[in-house]
Amino acid sequence: MPARQIEELIALLARLPGFGPRSARRTALHLIRHPENTMLPLASALTETAEAIQACSECGNLDTASPCSVCADDRRDMSQICVVEDVGDLWALERSRMYKGLYHVLGGTLSAIEGRGPEELRLDQLARKASDQRVLEVIIATNATVEGQTTAHYITDKLAEANVRITRLAQGIPFGGELDYLDDGTLGAAFKARVGV
Amino acid sequence: MPARQIEELIALLARLPGFGPRSARRTALHLIRHPENTMLPLASALTETAEAIQACSECGNLDTASPCSVCADDRRDMSQICVVEDVGDLWALERSRMYKGLYHVLGGTLSAIEGRGPEELRLDQLARKASDQRVLEVIIATNATVEGQTTAHYITDKLAEANVRITRLAQGIPFGGELDYLDDGTLGAAFKARVGV
Repeated sequence: MPARQIEELIALLARLPGFGPRSARRTALHLIRHPENTMLPLASALTETAEAIQACSECGNLDTASPCSVCADDRRDMSQICVVEDVGDLWALERSRMYKGLYHVLGGTLSAIEGRGPEELRLDQLARKASDQRVLEVIIATNATVEGQTTAHYITDKLAEANVRITRLAQGIPFGGELDYLDDGTLGAAFKARVGV
Repeated sequence: MPARQIEELIALLARLPGFGPRSARRTALHLIRHPENTMLPLASALTETAEAIQACSECGNLDTASPCSVCADDRRDMSQICVVEDVGDLWALERSRMYKGLYHVLGGTLSAIEGRGPEELRLDQLARKASDQRVLEVIIATNATVEGQTTAHYITDKLAEANVRITRLAQGIPFGGELDYLDDGTLGAAFKARVGV
């Protein structure tokens, strides 16, 4: 059996998303074969990041500074706020390079079961920001799941009084999507939202 | 875009086996959401293991002590030496709890391309151990690949002069194997090695 330290490393790896006992063992094995050039750099990257990471007080993004690099960037368009569920969604939108405005990271969806109400999603803070005269548009980019859509409706209601345009991401056929493999909901939405050519 | 430290962490994760850019980002995101209870424990487990890990001078196993916990365990059967390609194979056999003898970990197979000759696999050391009067059997448990089988043949020749029984793991249908999905080689081997019931 592997030594105690190795067993502990495997147990920690196995708790990461997408890992099971087998892949954790395989990764641990890869790591202990090259302690100097894989384990120590990874350990110091983890420590360094863990010490530096903080939630942005403005938007909720996780970054090494607060305000985060997006909020602190004065080239960003301050007239737009994009509401996303999670930091991963923010990263995805940033990778698409389609959006140059600011964000509001909810940190989840409204969920009675998981005990996340409007306070946890900092919706009062969002409403205050939306009331700022410089803000012209709030783009709701929650996931196209039941929870995401419920949260989107709630936010739309909540911002009704703010003098701001509220939009949502378009739904339809994804790039490369084959009609035969798409669910009826997507097909119906794409059909209803068809555009002239 | 994520901060420099996070980017570095993602890059290091993406170099682990089974990881791509996407899964590395997902794992990094999981980690930075819980810095205290995932990142720091993982970092210290990595550092601790990296500092403790060493190759066993006896068998080549990677462990936190040399001789390793297998070689140092006097309840193990010293009359058997099982030859495996890799530490992962040793772990797999230990998990099966079928084997109570000692090991010789080759650290790979003979490979002209990757520059691994008999010295790298410490075959002289294996021959010396096999010549010990207390050793009665050498079980060759290299993988059932071309490289593994070539190495197995070489070791068999090399140990011919030692007064020791040389065996190899049985080949055949794996548990749960369906004939229709097995390759001809496995089927042929299983047929040839059929046993009376």
